[in-house]
Amino acid sequence: MLRTNTCGELTLNDLGKTVTLCGWVQKSRDLGGTTFIDVRDRYGITQLVFNDETAADIKEQARVLGREFVIKVTGKVIERSNKNLKIPTGEIEIAVAELEILNQSKVPPFLIEDETDGGEELRAKYRYLDLRRNPIRNNLVLRHKMAQEVRKYLDGLDFIEVETPVLIKSTPEGARDFVVPSRMNPGEFYALPQSPQTFKQLLMVSGFDRYFQIVKCFRDEDLRADRQPEFTQIDCEMSFITQEDILNVFEGLVRTLFKNVKGINLIEVPRMTYADAMRLYGSDKPDTRFGMAFVELKNVEKSASEAPLLWKGGGEAAFPVFDQAELVIGINAKNCAAYTRKQLDELTDYIKRPQIGATGLIYLRYNLDGTLKSSVDKFYNEEDLKKWAEAFSAQPGDLMLLLAGKKDKVRKQLNELRLEMGNRLGLRDKNTFSPLWVLDFPLLEWDEETQRHHAMHHPFTSPKPEDIALLETNPGEVRANAYDLVINGTEVGGGSIRIHDRNLQALMFKHLGFSPEEAQKQFGFLMDAFEFGAPPHGGIAFGFDRLCSIFAGLDSIRDVIAFPKNNSGRDVMIDSPSTIDRKQLDELKIKTTI
Amino acid sequence: MLRTNTCGELTLNDLGKTVTLCGWVQKSRDLGGTTFIDVRDRYGITQLVFNDETAADIKEQARVLGREFVIKVTGKVIERSNKNLKIPTGEIEIAVAELEILNQSKVPPFLIEDETDGGEELRAKYRYLDLRRNPIRNNLVLRHKMAQEVRKYLDGLDFIEVETPVLIKSTPEGARDFVVPSRMNPGEFYALPQSPQTFKQLLMVSGFDRYFQIVKCFRDEDLRADRQPEFTQIDCEMSFITQEDILNVFEGLVRTLFKNVKGINLIEVPRMTYADAMRLYGSDKPDTRFGMAFVELKNVEKSASEAPLLWKGGGEAAFPVFDQAELVIGINAKNCAAYTRKQLDELTDYIKRPQIGATGLIYLRYNLDGTLKSSVDKFYNEEDLKKWAEAFSAQPGDLMLLLAGKKDKVRKQLNELRLEMGNRLGLRDKNTFSPLWVLDFPLLEWDEETQRHHAMHHPFTSPKPEDIALLETNPGEVRANAYDLVINGTEVGGGSIRIHDRNLQALMFKHLGFSPEEAQKQFGFLMDAFEFGAPPHGGIAFGFDRLCSIFAGLDSIRDVIAFPKNNSGRDVMIDSPSTIDRKQLDELKIKTTI
Repeated sequence: MLRTNTCGELTLNDLGKTVTLCGWVQKSRDLGGTTFIDVRDRYGITQLVFNDETAADIKEQARVLGREFVIKVTGKVIERSNKNLKIPTGEIEIAVAELEILNQSKVPPFLIEDETDGGEELRAKYRYLDLRRNPIRNNLVLRHKMAQEVRKYLDGLDFIEVETPVLIKSTPEGARDFVVPSRMNPGEFYALPQSPQTFKQLLMVSGFDRYFQIVKCFRDEDLRADRQPEFTQIDCEMSFITQEDILNVFEGLVRTLFKNVKGINLIEVPRMTYADAMRLYGSDKPDTRFGMAFVELKNVEKSASEAPLLWKGGGEAAFPVFDQAELVIGINAKNCAAYTRKQLDELTDYIKRPQIGATGLIYLRYNLDGTLKSSVDKFYNEEDLKKWAEAFSAQPGDLMLLLAGKKDKVRKQLNELRLEMGNRLGLRDKNTFSPLWVLDFPLLEWDEETQRHHAMHHPFTSPKPEDIALLETNPGEVRANAYDLVINGTEVGGGSIRIHDRNLQALMFKHLGFSPEEAQKQFGFLMDAFEFGAPPHGGIAFGFDRLCSIFAGLDSIRDVIAFPKNNSGRDVMIDSPSTIDRKQLDELKIKTTI
Repeated sequence: MLRTNTCGELTLNDLGKTVTLCGWVQKSRDLGGTTFIDVRDRYGITQLVFNDETAADIKEQARVLGREFVIKVTGKVIERSNKNLKIPTGEIEIAVAELEILNQSKVPPFLIEDETDGGEELRAKYRYLDLRRNPIRNNLVLRHKMAQEVRKYLDGLDFIEVETPVLIKSTPEGARDFVVPSRMNPGEFYALPQSPQTFKQLLMVSGFDRYFQIVKCFRDEDLRADRQPEFTQIDCEMSFITQEDILNVFEGLVRTLFKNVKGINLIEVPRMTYADAMRLYGSDKPDTRFGMAFVELKNVEKSASEAPLLWKGGGEAAFPVFDQAELVIGINAKNCAAYTRKQLDELTDYIKRPQIGATGLIYLRYNLDGTLKSSVDKFYNEEDLKKWAEAFSAQPGDLMLLLAGKKDKVRKQLNELRLEMGNRLGLRDKNTFSPLWVLDFPLLEWDEETQRHHAMHHPFTSPKPEDIALLETNPGEVRANAYDLVINGTEVGGGSIRIHDRNLQALMFKHLGFSPEEAQKQFGFLMDAFEFGAPPHGGIAFGFDRLCSIFAGLDSIRDVIAFPKNNSGRDVMIDSPSTIDRKQLDELKIKTTI
């Protein structure tokens, strides 16, 4: 090694030792007679001192060291007069006797500090410099630790990590597949996997019993939102299990990660059905760090006794918007009765944005003096409003926010408003972790565009046995043995019990609009495999980037990825994708058509 | 869980327990009154018994169970009368009280036994059934264990596993890159990495200090030999180190793997220069499980005193083939003097095969009676032959095999002959492991086709400082700080100390025939990075598939890969690659030209 120690480990225990350190010049202070230099490596920072006792030539050399120069120094560990107790090495410094410049550095285009002055684009272009900053590097160290813990936990439970292929087969539905032309098979293409789903199921057919893999997956989608064309999954599958077993094993995984990586003892993960999540939070991934569950004032699907307040039957109309609505729901923002007109207008504007699309917001203010004030109080009397406030369990000082409209739409809108209120009220603390299992997802969802049902999870998901009969009569009502793990309103994992019976799988393909020929062409190998003794099995996959970003307290997955791509799928550092040689295209027997 | 126990764990300690097992019917023996069924899972085999005490309907059901049916049974653990001490569960059996068929199976197309009757193609098509066989599954369990051990060892030394991107940039030289059209950037392509080389070097520039990754890499080559288009590397890099540090750290890795995975305490790994390896074994990856090092009888590059025997100076010619040869070398096959004419002819035929291309084989037989017999004894007298035998340290009973010709060619040929003799003499035992570091590789190698030098390792390899001056005068002689780890004649890893100086890197690109513009276009991001304080660094990459295959005692890497491709790069199980939809091509703005 060029060094005897790292820059993060020397303390008073090492006084008097002669040591050699290597690292980058973090900063330099020239106080006339004395020069202090902070040298940095991955492990920490150590102060170097050059003073009257230092040889003149070395002192001179030290003076010209620029930021980010790579140096090697040898010297004695001495006690610092001016101690810095914030860092482990802050009580010592090195009296330098030898100094070697291992490499020079131009002045970096932005500050290599925890808080930098570089904009996002600049930092992306010089990602290798951004990665020098502690916050970014720490994210990747965290990611490494999490991967190690995942493997240790699963290995301890007899899971085997098996690498599945990256060059697989494109599926006709897979407009979102990345494809790879095969030179050896001209005119043919591989596809990059969106997930190793079919392979892990085949491994169950092979009797592998317990499989996992931390694996890159690929999706050629437009990258609005926080998506990357390549992302990493913790992919898992088990045989001879029930849904309950999967929930327990993987709740154990998440609990272990929180404990060993963050030192947090997680409570038992609560469970909620998809139906309840939609009803109470308008989302299949509710943020349960805070309450503010939806209260229904009217629900046309319910009888008058279940949701009575605005359900006045036929002729007792009062406020047309409510009367015509399928659903009138609201949330109680505790202690917000003092919200100003301006604040309420902001909220109204927020939910009227095209992405949310609400038409208006109704409020009910429970003043501290006990009076009630609503934007619709010309339609309802004090008695009515009181009943509403009771439904919300409201106290004086609370503010109730109501939306009305079509059931599905209004729930989604109120979900957005609830999250916004959570933000405004500081209820979404990044250091609080609230996990939740969401269970009993619908098997199918209706796609307006293609006018047919799609698999909500994927076509291999098993319907609940008691719901199979509904496939013929009311497919939208069929529930699946499918589950998601949600943390703080983000879906971090999802899975299902799979179909292991060829006939049921064929029935599913039929309901998804595949002809028997299409199903055979596309998934014949899997259906064939089911004829040779497929065991009952199920699994789950976690979005590893997302999980890491939640552990790191980040909003974006980008900074838990060493070399991420931008929203156009470009790596601006290496300038990729790029055009390729004509010769290469010719060899691949393809040409571009732009 | 559907079971209380696996099929591999019940013993006499469990007598009397009521247990539930799940698994596959391995075999069934119907002895009239009693039916025995072996049920198998990943963990082992347990015998089930159905006899007079079994309910009649269950007994009847048991009789019709076919091979590979998936069953669930509940029953009591009882002692076997006919014990099988070869398996851990062989002293007990289960008296079955309940039997459920979880899934049926068609008769598999080949035997699911350690020794199967299925041909290679059939087993590839039904890979999921072949993976049920113990030998294949055990290989993948071994691979999992090795990956776990690699991670544990490197994590313990502060290495961080960082995922580098799979969608990267194609390099003009990279005719062997797989490319991926970008839908979002029409006309442009990503490439799949042949290795994460530049990214791991950037991580060193970022101060990550110690990086590793077990990572898929891709190479679009013709797949003669034992190659796969996608393969896995253990990729590693370290900063502030010398070559000696890398050798020690990774010798430690290999030693740990042998100890923890195979229970073998490896000796210290010997080291040999590339020059010596070529001289003594004609190969940069000598199989050192056995000796049979080359002996030079003549070497025109050496003085008469160094290699005297056939170096008679100008006029003393005897045997024209030897007289005209640059090199006359041979090996001593101990105790093979009794080889028959037929055996010698076989060897001659072997080395005359076009892949080897020797023109003839000369032998020298040291008979047990002390006489010498050679195929060229009409040219040389007994005294000459005696001297040759001495040079080989031959004993009566030995057989010396000699080749003559151009230096490089004849060494390669004799390497092949040596390996063949090793095979014939049983000196290449798969349970013996002989590792070797080969050091001081040449920096450049001459490419006949393009008539220029290519980087032997890659363009980022550092020349030995003392050889840099030779770059201008005699580039072929420049040695690199590059090293390979060889086990049993197979290169399992290779690496180098890298260039970390921009100017030296630019000089290298120049010598590799890059114009400054080409170098900048292709590797500008790396050269730019070198201007911002790149530390001295180096690394190594191991071929993980190959390493696993050696540990598993296999000749091919195919059976340490769950879903390998065949020699045409096809996965015959899923039938990939395949044609894709016109619509998909249109979206990608490409078309095929066949």
